Amino acid sequence: MFRAAEVVEIIRNDIYFEKQGDRMVFILKPDAPKEQIDQFLVSWEQKGFSTILSVGTEHTAVCLIGNTAEVDLDHIVETTDIVSYGKRITEQYKAVNRVVHEDDTIIHVGDVTIGEGFFTVISGPCSVESNEQILEIAFSVKNSGAKILRGGAFKPRTSPYAFQGRQEDGLEMLRMAKRETGLPIVSEIMNQTQLNLFEDIDIVQIGARNMQNFDLLRAVGGLKKPVLLKRGLANTIEELLMSAEYIVSAGNSEVILCERGIRSFETMTRNTLDLSAVVLLKQKSHLPVIADPSHASGIRSLVQPLSKAIMAVGADGIMVETHNNPAKALCDGAQSLDLEQFHDLMEDLKKRAEIEEKVI
Amino acid sequence: MFRAAEVVEIIRNDIYFEKQGDRMVFILKPDAPKEQIDQFLVSWEQKGFSTILSVGTEHTAVCLIGNTAEVDLDHIVETTDIVSYGKRITEQYKAVNRVVHEDDTIIHVGDVTIGEGFFTVISGPCSVESNEQILEIAFSVKNSGAKILRGGAFKPRTSPYAFQGRQEDGLEMLRMAKRETGLPIVSEIMNQTQLNLFEDIDIVQIGARNMQNFDLLRAVGGLKKPVLLKRGLANTIEELLMSAEYIVSAGNSEVILCERGIRSFETMTRNTLDLSAVVLLKQKSHLPVIADPSHASGIRSLVQPLSKAIMAVGADGIMVETHNNPAKALCDGAQSLDLEQFHDLMEDLKKRAEIEEKVI
Amino acid sequence: MFRAAEVVEIIRNDIYFEKQGDRMVFILKPDAPKEQIDQFLVSWEQKGFSTILSVGTEHTAVCLIGNTAEVDLDHIVETTDIVSYGKRITEQYKAVNRVVHEDDTIIHVGDVTIGEGFFTVISGPCSVESNEQILEIAFSVKNSGAKILRGGAFKPRTSPYAFQGRQEDGLEMLRMAKRETGLPIVSEIMNQTQLNLFEDIDIVQIGARNMQNFDLLRAVGGLKKPVLLKRGLANTIEELLMSAEYIVSAGNSEVILCERGIRSFETMTRNTLDLSAVVLLKQKSHLPVIADPSHASGIRSLVQPLSKAIMAVGADGIMVETHNNPAKALCDGAQSLDLEQFHDLMEDLKKRAEIEEKVI
Amino acid sequence: MFRAAEVVEIIRNDIYFEKQGDRMVFILKPDAPKEQIDQFLVSWEQKGFSTILSVGTEHTAVCLIGNTAEVDLDHIVETTDIVSYGKRITEQYKAVNRVVHEDDTIIHVGDVTIGEGFFTVISGPCSVESNEQILEIAFSVKNSGAKILRGGAFKPRTSPYAFQGRQEDGLEMLRMAKRETGLPIVSEIMNQTQLNLFEDIDIVQIGARNMQNFDLLRAVGGLKKPVLLKRGLANTIEELLMSAEYIVSAGNSEVILCERGIRSFETMTRNTLDLSAVVLLKQKSHLPVIADPSHASGIRSLVQPLSKAIMAVGADGIMVETHNNPAKALCDGAQSLDLEQFHDLMEDLKKRAEIEEKVI
Repeated sequence: MFRAAEVVEIIRNDIYFEKQGDRMVFILKPDAPKEQIDQFLVSWEQKGFSTILSVGTEHTAVCLIGNTAEVDLDHIVETTDIVSYGKRITEQYKAVNRVVHEDDTIIHVGDVTIGEGFFTVISGPCSVESNEQILEIAFSVKNSGAKILRGGAFKPRTSPYAFQGRQEDGLEMLRMAKRETGLPIVSEIMNQTQLNLFEDIDIVQIGARNMQNFDLLRAVGGLKKPVLLKRGLANTIEELLMSAEYIVSAGNSEVILCERGIRSFETMTRNTLDLSAVVLLKQKSHLPVIADPSHASGIRSLVQPLSKAIMAVGADGIMVETHNNPAKALCDGAQSLDLEQFHDLMEDLKKRAEIEEKVI
Repeated sequence: MFRAAEVVEIIRNDIYFEKQGDRMVFILKPDAPKEQIDQFLVSWEQKGFSTILSVGTEHTAVCLIGNTAEVDLDHIVETTDIVSYGKRITEQYKAVNRVVHEDDTIIHVGDVTIGEGFFTVISGPCSVESNEQILEIAFSVKNSGAKILRGGAFKPRTSPYAFQGRQEDGLEMLRMAKRETGLPIVSEIMNQTQLNLFEDIDIVQIGARNMQNFDLLRAVGGLKKPVLLKRGLANTIEELLMSAEYIVSAGNSEVILCERGIRSFETMTRNTLDLSAVVLLKQKSHLPVIADPSHASGIRSLVQPLSKAIMAVGADGIMVETHNNPAKALCDGAQSLDLEQFHDLMEDLKKRAEIEEKVI
Repeated sequence: MFRAAEVVEIIRNDIYFEKQGDRMVFILKPDAPKEQIDQFLVSWEQKGFSTILSVGTEHTAVCLIGNTAEVDLDHIVETTDIVSYGKRITEQYKAVNRVVHEDDTIIHVGDVTIGEGFFTVISGPCSVESNEQILEIAFSVKNSGAKILRGGAFKPRTSPYAFQGRQEDGLEMLRMAKRETGLPIVSEIMNQTQLNLFEDIDIVQIGARNMQNFDLLRAVGGLKKPVLLKRGLANTIEELLMSAEYIVSAGNSEVILCERGIRSFETMTRNTLDLSAVVLLKQKSHLPVIADPSHASGIRSLVQPLSKAIMAVGADGIMVETHNNPAKALCDGAQSLDLEQFHDLMEDLKKRAEIEEKVI
Repeated sequence: MFRAAEVVEIIRNDIYFEKQGDRMVFILKPDAPKEQIDQFLVSWEQKGFSTILSVGTEHTAVCLIGNTAEVDLDHIVETTDIVSYGKRITEQYKAVNRVVHEDDTIIHVGDVTIGEGFFTVISGPCSVESNEQILEIAFSVKNSGAKILRGGAFKPRTSPYAFQGRQEDGLEMLRMAKRETGLPIVSEIMNQTQLNLFEDIDIVQIGARNMQNFDLLRAVGGLKKPVLLKRGLANTIEELLMSAEYIVSAGNSEVILCERGIRSFETMTRNTLDLSAVVLLKQKSHLPVIADPSHASGIRSLVQPLSKAIMAVGADGIMVETHNNPAKALCDGAQSLDLEQFHDLMEDLKKRAEIEEKVI
């Protein structure tokens, strides 16, 4: 049974949201001239609203942020030539909302494509340890079929006494591996003071613990490169979308959402992978959605079956940890595949990609 | 990071378990004569132990329940002809433990097979409503490929004022549908006083709220028919195995485990489907494991993608709610597929069964 | 931030509830003659509604169960002499709702009172082990100030190999302890077939795992004695109230609610005590509310501070496990106070009862 | 029942921790000369260990960080004059561990004391809105008995379109309120680039979402002022202690821990207050522990009863949100007390402080 008790509480709260940022969207006619669109935007801004312009291949939408309680939606539609129709939306998130932007967002990183129709595999070690380690892994996962190389340079660790990553040296090793293999690279940023360090990193990752580090979200919203945003351990699907909204509304629409398991009462696994979230995120948003079977389970023998499930449920890719010697990994060895296991996984996924009609 | 704090607490607790029921298993030689096995069992029972005899195609095992702290395992192995080797096991569950019983348990219900190598689809309405309803659904899901018909007669409802099911009439409608279609039937039992009502029901279902109704578990442990045991909303994988242990140790080894979503903080779905549990249950136990995408999500549009993921992760089947008119269903309409959607799902799953090398 | 996303989902669901059991209550005038009240009830039942008559010292209320969508509330109020006013209520629970029954329910067990204005301490061992054990504990906790003796005879255990309680012998030991000490007794019932065994038990306890064993709830709804209903490990406050509604709507209004900790991600304690639930239950319902610090924490050294917090937050009592030799207890020794610790706790609570203006 | 399954998993993991940061502590003799202590520290550092020197009134301890597997503890004790005894500790946290530092840490902020023996009340608005607002609230809560003024200047909000706080102006309003009332002030820092803005703020608050922002923790570890560290929504007690360890091991031992509710499945409250955590934190650590009833519940009518429970359970204070006009608050109005309600709460708490033998 759904828990229906607090309807009144929630609605009241909803009204409270309503006060602060609203939910009206106008879908423009296909042939609306740019000039008139600009004029339309300016007219709203002069009335004190913020606007989001969302341009898709099918339709272009204008979303109003502000108190629209007094706005007569029908009147606007009738009196504005370029407007096809308008509607109020019930969600807090607008720029990432599929209602506002119907087309799937497709992201390009070098030759690699991420989004609907593709199943993009990101792989590499939890932590970059040495030139030899990252090179061996990078060449191997590339040969197996991975399209993007991951590697942690700055590691968020529960204990101050645990290995904290190779830091800037780690980023340099990663860039070297990119030069050698041609693989685009992704690594986790810890805070906005590191932005300059990530200049040559192709995709900037926001870790689960930083999902609601709003200053960092705003900062990467100013970048011209994709952001991989991981769901927080205890964050709802809606909160993840709101965090993506921070980035997109700040100007960067290249956000990849990543389900990586949530914290539940179950202790046999590190986290509980929430595959319903993958489906709902793709229904409610136009952004690409991938999942991370390594952190979701924390157990090597679960990575392969979970990866297959992630593909079958409709995700746009996976991020999976690999290591050339998991038993000696400085971090997360218990959940890392060795290079042969990763190769086998990729062979399996390639066969499955056909039935899914996806490019892997 | 795993939560490692309470190691001492848990170990202390573990020792406490140790006192009450222990963990020693002897694997017998393939050719051990039945007579000597019986003698071996009797000898332990005379010393005050309970025993579990587990006969598999590969090996036969004898498990001791009791304080084995003083038992010299090596000495027993050396001095007992029929014993191949012995070991202590770390888990609480014994009879359902794959260590004790290596072969997959395969369950037969009429012509239907449930277990490794098969993907068995159970389908039908949340609640049996009328002869017309159950017949229409039963014929349709059979034609689409379902092998077993489900239908609730006694419904556990949060509210005393909600529809409580057709009760005994519902069971009769279900039996009628079986006679007409030939499909084996499964329905939920609420308590052990109903056992006689379920005589002609092929599979008895224990619902999530009854997973730790230990008297009921013991009671169905006395049946000669399969039991479908659903995981509780807030029960761990280990607790599910312990509940299965109640049934198997009471004499009924035909238990089908069912993952149906756990309660987490996420509110956008009814529950959170835990697919890692499916893999772990199959690793740790020899029992068949299926999953229920309908209750796990509570949302119709999630049932198809989750079903595909359940197959890909390695489950032995699904239980999925269908209705000839979901909008008018007396119960759980929002999560029920209509008959055409179910047909489409089955067509999709049949294609996928090939790649999984499973009989569907 | 509250999670406001699924408002529409919940409201839709709410409407669905609305269809099946409704929410209209009429408050009667203080001097309404019994005859006219009966006539009023009959008139509704003839129209197909069920009714709940709730008699309080301040007002008497009639609650309608059924589809009241078409009922013209104002018209009824205007045209029915004995009706003072009417209202629709938003909650699913009616008979236990404070809106329907404003006065606090006060329960009497022998000389003992449970409810607002009192802080009733229930104590005793997790499990009744022997005549000597239960007698020693009973006399000691009585001298320290406990008003009711608890003792488990049938124990719900995760493992089939763990001690399952002294069963019927345990109940007899408990009755003996009552005869010797004069303390009323409470013990947990496992299923409705045991009802006759509990005839001389003063208060019947429904354990956490049985909170949604609806047949059992209905069965104890037919008793003429108090029921102690514990919150399930993963059940919401509203679900607890709905389970109480099963009992009260079946005719037994003497229900004591018990918060005993919920299952969360935290593993350092056995459960997470939810003291907000105590306050909300008392706000929303007229039933007495107690809490169980022993099961809520699982750790002896937490029992005293949590007991003080439970009193301070406004609960009507506690249920606390004690043992004459916790180190050798057959069950839950780690969370049981020894008799001296319990004595100290009672001395402390007695001082605090003054500031709370409660009778202890 | 505790969940005992993953003992082996956890122990293995524990060994892994062991490799990276260890757990040996030497308690020094009371009269150990500073010179010899320094020499002792240097000798370990030369062998590659990090050391923590913890000076208490009762004893002084030296904690080793590094691989102590090969260290012969008994030999060290026997051959080092200034060492009284040594032990290995099982916890990850060392500098905040009561084993290493037996005395309660007492923190002084101006004339205000925080720690064992005191119950310090921190109050003020969720968000500083204007000079008038903060002044009215500050004078009022001071008169009622609050000792420290809280006020949010930078607000972490789920939605980018919600009010984000008065930012630097808010800090200035807060400083003004301090000048006028003499109350020390506490406000939340969002990231380490803001450190200079917080120079005149007496206590720097780390919010729940930043509890594992490890760079920020290290940064405030370099401050010479108290840090108020709130528990994350889904963080365990041990993780909170590990985050405190980041700060203390970086040189700042003035950390105040704050329980503020965790995220559970219950939706009727904003979070679930975990009072067991308060007791356990005080048992395991020497740091002061307060709790926040406002965020823990999200409901005004729960703040008073929860505050009383927080005092009764043994916390060293509360942080409670107040507003001169909650209905018009820009943030969290639903959980804020008005000034009269706060006054009443304080009168109640003052009476209770006597029985607790605490200075309020």
